[in-house]
Amino acid sequence: MTAKTPEQTKTIMTDLVLPSETNPLNNLFGGELLARMDRCASIAARRHSRRIVVTASVNHVAFNRSVPLGSVVTVEAKVSRAFKTSMEVFLDVWIEDRESGLRTKANEAIYTFVAVDETGRPVEIPEITPETDLEKERYAAALRRKQLSLVLAGKMKPKDATELKALFE
Amino acid sequence: MTAKTPEQTKTIMTDLVLPSETNPLNNLFGGELLARMDRCASIAARRHSRRIVVTASVNHVAFNRSVPLGSVVTVEAKVSRAFKTSMEVFLDVWIEDRESGLRTKANEAIYTFVAVDETGRPVEIPEITPETDLEKERYAAALRRKQLSLVLAGKMKPKDATELKALFE
Amino acid sequence: MTAKTPEQTKTIMTDLVLPSETNPLNNLFGGELLARMDRCASIAARRHSRRIVVTASVNHVAFNRSVPLGSVVTVEAKVSRAFKTSMEVFLDVWIEDRESGLRTKANEAIYTFVAVDETGRPVEIPEITPETDLEKERYAAALRRKQLSLVLAGKMKPKDATELKALFE
Amino acid sequence: MTAKTPEQTKTIMTDLVLPSETNPLNNLFGGELLARMDRCASIAARRHSRRIVVTASVNHVAFNRSVPLGSVVTVEAKVSRAFKTSMEVFLDVWIEDRESGLRTKANEAIYTFVAVDETGRPVEIPEITPETDLEKERYAAALRRKQLSLVLAGKMKPKDATELKALFE
Amino acid sequence: MTAKTPEQTKTIMTDLVLPSETNPLNNLFGGELLARMDRCASIAARRHSRRIVVTASVNHVAFNRSVPLGSVVTVEAKVSRAFKTSMEVFLDVWIEDRESGLRTKANEAIYTFVAVDETGRPVEIPEITPETDLEKERYAAALRRKQLSLVLAGKMKPKDATELKALFE
Amino acid sequence: MTAKTPEQTKTIMTDLVLPSETNPLNNLFGGELLARMDRCASIAARRHSRRIVVTASVNHVAFNRSVPLGSVVTVEAKVSRAFKTSMEVFLDVWIEDRESGLRTKANEAIYTFVAVDETGRPVEIPEITPETDLEKERYAAALRRKQLSLVLAGKMKPKDATELKALFE
Repeated sequence: MTAKTPEQTKTIMTDLVLPSETNPLNNLFGGELLARMDRCASIAARRHSRRIVVTASVNHVAFNRSVPLGSVVTVEAKVSRAFKTSMEVFLDVWIEDRESGLRTKANEAIYTFVAVDETGRPVEIPEITPETDLEKERYAAALRRKQLSLVLAGKMKPKDATELKALFE
Repeated sequence: MTAKTPEQTKTIMTDLVLPSETNPLNNLFGGELLARMDRCASIAARRHSRRIVVTASVNHVAFNRSVPLGSVVTVEAKVSRAFKTSMEVFLDVWIEDRESGLRTKANEAIYTFVAVDETGRPVEIPEITPETDLEKERYAAALRRKQLSLVLAGKMKPKDATELKALFE
Repeated sequence: MTAKTPEQTKTIMTDLVLPSETNPLNNLFGGELLARMDRCASIAARRHSRRIVVTASVNHVAFNRSVPLGSVVTVEAKVSRAFKTSMEVFLDVWIEDRESGLRTKANEAIYTFVAVDETGRPVEIPEITPETDLEKERYAAALRRKQLSLVLAGKMKPKDATELKALFE
Repeated sequence: MTAKTPEQTKTIMTDLVLPSETNPLNNLFGGELLARMDRCASIAARRHSRRIVVTASVNHVAFNRSVPLGSVVTVEAKVSRAFKTSMEVFLDVWIEDRESGLRTKANEAIYTFVAVDETGRPVEIPEITPETDLEKERYAAALRRKQLSLVLAGKMKPKDATELKALFE
Repeated sequence: MTAKTPEQTKTIMTDLVLPSETNPLNNLFGGELLARMDRCASIAARRHSRRIVVTASVNHVAFNRSVPLGSVVTVEAKVSRAFKTSMEVFLDVWIEDRESGLRTKANEAIYTFVAVDETGRPVEIPEITPETDLEKERYAAALRRKQLSLVLAGKMKPKDATELKALFE
Repeated sequence: MTAKTPEQTKTIMTDLVLPSETNPLNNLFGGELLARMDRCASIAARRHSRRIVVTASVNHVAFNRSVPLGSVVTVEAKVSRAFKTSMEVFLDVWIEDRESGLRTKANEAIYTFVAVDETGRPVEIPEITPETDLEKERYAAALRRKQLSLVLAGKMKPKDATELKALFE
């Protein structure tokens, strides 16, 4: 299995906000955006692993900007780090102003997927080699997030989470 | 505004897993479950605040068990802590075996909502008073999570996150 | 097969009225509510029988109150009476005012389900033992409704529908 | 307002059974068929009244035959009787065998609609004049059904339901 | 295989324009109408061939009139010509004014379907015999359209498209 | 209004084929693909015009390859030519093999959109300047297609369709 680059997994999903996806303030439901991001991220993970992939977890997602009905929303996903059988996928979401054409960052999110065989058993996947500065930064942070996730799940002792611990020193 | 109890905000959403919500392994898409949990949690937040509520963030969600097509899924949401204008909602998700009738915990999730007026501006909400041991434990942990969220967003210095810092000492 | 109680089959489905489910007056379509009630009732019937269940019939359903866009709707279903292979399920539907928090009864409905095996053939199910006064009243009325249904289908002679005939004497 | 005939209100809705509408036995969900029939019947009621119409009630509906995935289903609705502000709509549902081309009756249903103005207040509608034998039979039976509905709702004393009472004598 | 008439394949699909199908001007999305017409035309093609049918192509479709939210839309499809394994289906779309009851032609479309066996291989189908003047006219034009389609696909030389060439002389 | 390039309007919509979008052969419904392409093309047209856009017509679309359930489908749209108030959008559709990662062209389509103001009246739009060879070829062909469309609609005499006529000489 030869290593890949995040760019090779890049997945772009541009679509409209439809009336059936909006809340009483006429903005996109948070839950609908979570579902779109899940589909987009799963394609990036599949492009990296060439396997069936299933959502393992969603990291902290902040909805900083509301996304109004009729907006054009672009979700862009790239695998940020590959572990033995799992992948972290980093998502950037933009909305686009119709009149000015300007794109604004709406939010970021991080999903983790596991690659499985037809029976649902985890399988090994290739490594990933970050290229740009942003990709390298996200690659490094992915390890801290994995440690945090293991600590919160009680599967790693806080004192062993070396990367994470450094944050508080 | 008189304080409420988590029990007063409890929201139960029991429903089937429909064929349109499943992935190639015939299990519920992670994204669909995220969308259902968002709707359920938003109702709990609305019951607490009696206001329009919008999703502010989703905490780490782990998908520990796959949920097969045709399952009965119960999502149960309760407000775990109220801050000035925002609420943390804790969700428990169960699936139910048809033949034995046994309920198994599928996963947990934590969403944060902000109460807003008709123009989308944040408004103050009542306090919440936890009653059971589990509610008290989740109430206490909510503060650590809020600090973690502020640290990760760069809005609080790690050294000021007293509750969180204690974890690593 | 040990008898069960209606309480053991109780199924609660709380959800929002979404924009895609509304008519030109911005109220929930009758047809959408019928579909939600069918899913909720089928879960109650499944909880009683632990079998695959299929809708056999829908009794008279009156839509007394319109349900506006954005409402929180709670559908609650309980098996009201079990016959040899079929079950009557009684549904109560409430809507909830956001500002006052008051719950109002929107309507009632009665669905009948048949329990079947994997090939679609009817199978025997446990009995049900009503506990509360309301459950007992609904249990008794279920027999009259079954007779009425058989009379209307031409499968029972009106003069043999003893429970029903008594109503008109 | 000149009287109309049931034929003038006839509404045909032929469509496929899609994968998203099926239950674990791969048959159309009862609830989905109820929703389709509601839309079809509402169009017939609208054609009669030329008003906004809202579902008032659904009569007993029996699901006699299961409708498999991929079937072609034809729902046909005609107003069977008009009262002051409400209309009874009679529906016939057929499924069609792909290979033989034969149409089989799947079930019948009866819905009642009320005509309303833009503010939701009931408005008067034209009369209807049945033409064929079947239309005349359904027109006559509509009165018995209305009485039954009033009796069951406690709005008419059984002894005053002259049409209905005759059935049991 | 005995020949059929277009009338024997006639398929009527009357339905409402729902809020989830509309664009920012509150009119039916072109794409939604294309999807409805595809389902309706596939049923007409199936009625002619009594086979599984798959969409082969869509001819030029012009959207002459917008179709507002809440409209009643009738799609009517008839097979206009049968070739060896493929069929051209002609669709007429009307919208209906609620108050006057008047039907207006919204647009026309032409789809082509291929009849296939369970493995997806094309199979021969019966001929069709047009009866009315309109059916005869559409039957004749179908050959010109087939030639145009072959020319545009580079599968027929323009000089051999005799029917089509005549148009430009 | 300064001219734009096709590249500036490029819109990518990558998504999965979901179970609710498939026909009895487990392939994507033609109609669903038409709807996706309509949304994608409308975004490209909007990026060019910065106006509300409505679908005016769909050119001949051939479905050369079936798209199986679970496929990753990429729809890519670019404005190929701008006329006074309307734009032709050219779409390329690929499917991607999970195991080999190979992308195969599934089909092409051409949609036309009109730019309108808030009242639905057509408005003028910028010109477009093709850059690559493929863009130039599509730009030239767009004029022949416009003439063909006018001829078929009876709005241009075949003898005046100079570009088109040349094809048959």
